[in-house]
Amino acid sequence: MASSLLPFFARLDACAQAHQSILCIGLDPDPALLPIPDLTAFLLGVVDATSDLVCAYKPNLAFFEGQGWEGLKALEAVRKAIPSSIPVIADAKRGDIGSTARWYARSLFEVWGFDAVTVNPYLGRDGVEPFLDYADRGVYVLCRTSNPGARDFQDLQALSPYGGERLPLYQWVAVQASAWNAQGNLGLVVGATYPEEMAQVRALCPSIPFLVPGVGAQGGQVEKAVEKGLASQRLGLVISVSRGVLYPPEAEGPWQERVRRSAQAWRERINRALEAQGRGWRDAPTP
Amino acid sequence: MASSLLPFFARLDACAQAHQSILCIGLDPDPALLPIPDLTAFLLGVVDATSDLVCAYKPNLAFFEGQGWEGLKALEAVRKAIPSSIPVIADAKRGDIGSTARWYARSLFEVWGFDAVTVNPYLGRDGVEPFLDYADRGVYVLCRTSNPGARDFQDLQALSPYGGERLPLYQWVAVQASAWNAQGNLGLVVGATYPEEMAQVRALCPSIPFLVPGVGAQGGQVEKAVEKGLASQRLGLVISVSRGVLYPPEAEGPWQERVRRSAQAWRERINRALEAQGRGWRDAPTP
Repeated sequence: MASSLLPFFARLDACAQAHQSILCIGLDPDPALLPIPDLTAFLLGVVDATSDLVCAYKPNLAFFEGQGWEGLKALEAVRKAIPSSIPVIADAKRGDIGSTARWYARSLFEVWGFDAVTVNPYLGRDGVEPFLDYADRGVYVLCRTSNPGARDFQDLQALSPYGGERLPLYQWVAVQASAWNAQGNLGLVVGATYPEEMAQVRALCPSIPFLVPGVGAQGGQVEKAVEKGLASQRLGLVISVSRGVLYPPEAEGPWQERVRRSAQAWRERINRALEAQGRGWRDAPTP
Repeated sequence: MASSLLPFFARLDACAQAHQSILCIGLDPDPALLPIPDLTAFLLGVVDATSDLVCAYKPNLAFFEGQGWEGLKALEAVRKAIPSSIPVIADAKRGDIGSTARWYARSLFEVWGFDAVTVNPYLGRDGVEPFLDYADRGVYVLCRTSNPGARDFQDLQALSPYGGERLPLYQWVAVQASAWNAQGNLGLVVGATYPEEMAQVRALCPSIPFLVPGVGAQGGQVEKAVEKGLASQRLGLVISVSRGVLYPPEAEGPWQERVRRSAQAWRERINRALEAQGRGWRDAPTP
């Protein structure tokens, strides 16, 4: 569809370069954990305190929808407040039949104006293509999720009814989704909690960008994720941290300063991990 | 969670008995197809014209989200207008990691007050359980969807990494989801477009309730769906029609009358199919 925007992954890379950061802050506001009662003020404060430290923000729509109209109004306010140079990824995990998925794509890309989305592959190609049709937007397909239940179906050994190679389901998803990537705007969600599975997906898809949740509260290791997830070209990797930034463990100082220090610490830790792989920001420029 | 409501499936059965109908009308309002420009007035008119003919309504959230605030306000208005004796199934197909899925469950059950939801199984057990925890609500897990892309992953022959039986993925989902059904509030979505696969799922899960989309515009046959989908006890079957009722092909008369006649025709056709299976409303009462 016609647009004046650069492709999502070009904008993501530009923001990452400008901020020397592949840290994405996940905006998952839980009222029970907020340092102040006003949801919108909290979110605007987080963005204000961290916007020079990230390559993207990732609001998870569940937290906003679960707080009713107030939550949706807060989402609208924070979407508008994020500078246009910083891409916003809607973590929506939508998926429906083709004719319906078009309405989800319209909602997330046109109504809300998000730059990228996460989508669920269970319904197959016609459930994902309406999102991919927006050539200037990014579409991260769930591949290997970060939760314990990822094992229930994603690990099943799968083969085509017509025979052929046997692969775990999450690898099938990686291979199939890559084949749908006609416009170069598809990425994969691969959780940091499963580094060996991440390495398998990277071997199958050397250049597909990854969105990596699961570090911090969920226990995934940044260093492993960087080691296993880096792409063959560019960095091809975004590390998303939600609770670990929004609700920092340390208690000293005003809350915005604590959030900023927490984001700085994650960014530095990620950058050290990149340097350890010879892919730091001062190493040879990544095209 | 504590509630004064009867379990969803008891309420669904009561409404089906009262209206002698297992027809569910899918509320998928597409502005390009509406007979009048006012979205809310259209939806209220559909409910007004059909509420004695259905066992449930099923709004698909994509259509409402895709129309922005106006869409969400219309959803709120129609939710409130549907009599409390008629269950409302939110076709939301949500799925996320456990701690996040709780927020989707809160949104759909507590904020919106829906009686049942559809959920996506790709994230596994911890993505589904927060919905099942609401013992008085229904949770339909996507098993075999009605679209062409259903074949991409749901048909893969799958076996556990620990070996054992090889089953298509959709059958794995049916078997696993049934095992999570501790409170009897789980059903499966099985598309009418794949009657042979429906028969397979019914053989594996003789008493799990099915929600069956895909008749009408998508080409599924009501008679096949009734033949293959009826449960061993009760009817265990809801047939959902969206476009076929909302946008009837005939052009005679005021639009509300056309919608009503269309709903009547679908209900009668379904009831004839039930009678052909010896399970009509005048046959031996279904406990």
